[in-house]
Amino acid sequence: MTLKLHNYFRSSTSTRLRAALNLKGLAYEYVPVHLPERAHHADAFATLNPQRLVPALELDDGTVLIQSLAIMEWLDEAYPDRPLLPADPRARARVRALGQMVALEIHPINNLRVLTYLETTLGADAAAKTAWIHHWVDTTFAPLEAMLSQSPQTGTFCHGDTPGYADCCLYAQMWNNRRFGVDMAPYPTISRIFTALDALPEFADAAPAQQPDAI
Amino acid sequence: MTLKLHNYFRSSTSTRLRAALNLKGLAYEYVPVHLPERAHHADAFATLNPQRLVPALELDDGTVLIQSLAIMEWLDEAYPDRPLLPADPRARARVRALGQMVALEIHPINNLRVLTYLETTLGADAAAKTAWIHHWVDTTFAPLEAMLSQSPQTGTFCHGDTPGYADCCLYAQMWNNRRFGVDMAPYPTISRIFTALDALPEFADAAPAQQPDAI
Repeated sequence: MTLKLHNYFRSSTSTRLRAALNLKGLAYEYVPVHLPERAHHADAFATLNPQRLVPALELDDGTVLIQSLAIMEWLDEAYPDRPLLPADPRARARVRALGQMVALEIHPINNLRVLTYLETTLGADAAAKTAWIHHWVDTTFAPLEAMLSQSPQTGTFCHGDTPGYADCCLYAQMWNNRRFGVDMAPYPTISRIFTALDALPEFADAAPAQQPDAI
Repeated sequence: MTLKLHNYFRSSTSTRLRAALNLKGLAYEYVPVHLPERAHHADAFATLNPQRLVPALELDDGTVLIQSLAIMEWLDEAYPDRPLLPADPRARARVRALGQMVALEIHPINNLRVLTYLETTLGADAAAKTAWIHHWVDTTFAPLEAMLSQSPQTGTFCHGDTPGYADCCLYAQMWNNRRFGVDMAPYPTISRIFTALDALPEFADAAPAQQPDAI
């Protein structure tokens, strides 16, 4: 099956899904959607995803899957090899929760369209937007660091020594953190895991700067 | 197994999970966490969930599961009867995406702690906060209405005639919409589905006003 990934190099949800596809060993066609030029608001893209968000994964019969977490679950169900989630239900719940802390409690709040609303409607300047970004990262990274550092289930990666679902979410978030200058000193466990992930080609190849539309 | 649900009557993620537990036919102990009194910031609660968010589901061996979407997946894996998700992988991807549109793109942005930040740090008044809430509901409800109304897979509920994962997310969001006066006229399909859900005891019994801590 041909997989077409409609995405943008700097989009955190896109990075998350590129890492997941790489971990699964699945090749995909990279279709860039230029967010700064509002390509996701063009009619052609809205036909693919009425929500006008990247990423969207187009299958060869024209089916389009949206929402990166839902797509990661689909990848594990459609391609059971190299699972993104462990086998045990409670372990799966832990891994999903770790990933969702990033995917639900940081990313949506710090997303481009929210920052745009803060600026245009609420008059937030650049410093206020940066403070906002840091605030929501720190609000979730503090308990995430505690949970990762205190659990015997944490290994080289978020859960044991096999990277997966939570690592994809965390790895992608870290590129946003770097872009916006988040101080990682309070988060040594997260930093250690990021370094381990970034040493793997599946993750390094998913990084924003490695994509064909990177600027 | 005894299930203890640490939650709050008005919390949308709590309502979502109560509906899911009811749909699965699982009894649970209701443990109220009084958010306005900041009970979720007390040390006792932080021990249960370092993220200091409701809901948290405590199992009888002391294991605590967090993040409502991860808990819903666990419920389906630990208790396969009365599934919240359909069997087919692409149908599962559709249902997860519909639920996640609400759970990721509306709820986290309109959550209490974000509204508090808007007020205390960015000086947003009540009108500005209400406009914010409406904006993020409408931004997602417009494509959600289109996707639901245009798909032959939509039935009495979000996916066919059996309520599940996406319906739990949608039902809970609707109580927030009512509380904040969102105009539902542009969303006839969503309104129709909500009415059908609210006629089911599994959902009606999960509604905020029906909970022991409701005020």
